[in-house]
Amino acid sequence: MISIKSEQIYELEKHYRISLINSLIGYKSLNLLGTSSNDGITNLCLISSAFHLGANPPLLGIVMRPQREHNDTLNNIRLTGQFTLNNVLPAWYMQAHQTSASYPAGVSEFDACGFKKQYVQGFKAPFVAQSTIRIGLDVRELIDMDINGTTIVIGEIVQILTDDAMIAEDGTIDHTKAETMTVAGLDAYFLPQPVGRLAYAKPGIEPRQLTKEC
Amino acid sequence: MISIKSEQIYELEKHYRISLINSLIGYKSLNLLGTSSNDGITNLCLISSAFHLGANPPLLGIVMRPQREHNDTLNNIRLTGQFTLNNVLPAWYMQAHQTSASYPAGVSEFDACGFKKQYVQGFKAPFVAQSTIRIGLDVRELIDMDINGTTIVIGEIVQILTDDAMIAEDGTIDHTKAETMTVAGLDAYFLPQPVGRLAYAKPGIEPRQLTKEC
Repeated sequence: MISIKSEQIYELEKHYRISLINSLIGYKSLNLLGTSSNDGITNLCLISSAFHLGANPPLLGIVMRPQREHNDTLNNIRLTGQFTLNNVLPAWYMQAHQTSASYPAGVSEFDACGFKKQYVQGFKAPFVAQSTIRIGLDVRELIDMDINGTTIVIGEIVQILTDDAMIAEDGTIDHTKAETMTVAGLDAYFLPQPVGRLAYAKPGIEPRQLTKEC
Repeated sequence: MISIKSEQIYELEKHYRISLINSLIGYKSLNLLGTSSNDGITNLCLISSAFHLGANPPLLGIVMRPQREHNDTLNNIRLTGQFTLNNVLPAWYMQAHQTSASYPAGVSEFDACGFKKQYVQGFKAPFVAQSTIRIGLDVRELIDMDINGTTIVIGEIVQILTDDAMIAEDGTIDHTKAETMTVAGLDAYFLPQPVGRLAYAKPGIEPRQLTKEC
């Protein structure tokens, strides 16, 4: 067993530290984040920081890195107040990873990486046609973090585009059927296998598996 | 293809909506969150909202539900300024799920659900001995969210307890070896299978697999 303490973390080689810290919390939600400028120039990037904030109102958060001149995604989010999250499938996860390359301003990762845009009337941000779970969000809050220059974007879910078959009877998304992938750290991609769904936990009652399939 | 819009989301049956909204973003980081009161009464609960905020300083965030009288975890975090995150393994994931039951005040989920506490000198919050990846954090910021009453807790990673064998050469945690699980929605548990690690993406260069194993 090893124990790495604060001082040692700061002394680690930069890339080693980034890989370690990024991968500590385990598997992360993996989505393609779609935006558009007011002129209709689209942007697409991979994001693994999405977290559930609450179901009523239906809210989630994402973390955007410190603003730089070419950070078109955060600019678009600030200007249009809308973005989309779209799940990543094994058939094209390499193309999804490729959206993280630094393309020059004016080049859309939709075109450069082979993704098809899908639009919904009255909603500015583009969805990814190849995805099986697509979420459209209105920005509700932007929290600029003094501690490290990132911005936490809080969005309200206002659009859900999917297939009926992807939603289980109780409302839970069937991510096995949807072929949703997950990521650990910066670049390790995984496809989860179901272990079990468990019954609502109550004190004094043994935990119980509802189904083997998820 | 179905399209569910904002108005329809609000009209969904409550439990259906909670399950749907909780599961939309895909697989989530799954950890046991350990805390202690100033008197040494411990608390353990499952959390699936952990997100990476940055590597320098090494920061992550978690979402805590609206404060209630018996929300010992958030009380402990406020009072002691420390907490731990510990990964969940298939051998005892049902016990981990059981920590979400509403035990009476004064009952520690460590004892009620069969977990062994592990302490590090100078650090108040208990780690889970059965976990293979254990993180200790100092609270850096508490963000009370007016929008839904939740609190976003920002912590700095000050302790990492694991086995040397769990860290790959480049610093990335080997979550396959660590047997880390993930969760979708409220109660669907999964064990991910590696698909591939990909090379750093550059414009004009085809995406490339580094290794099949993750």
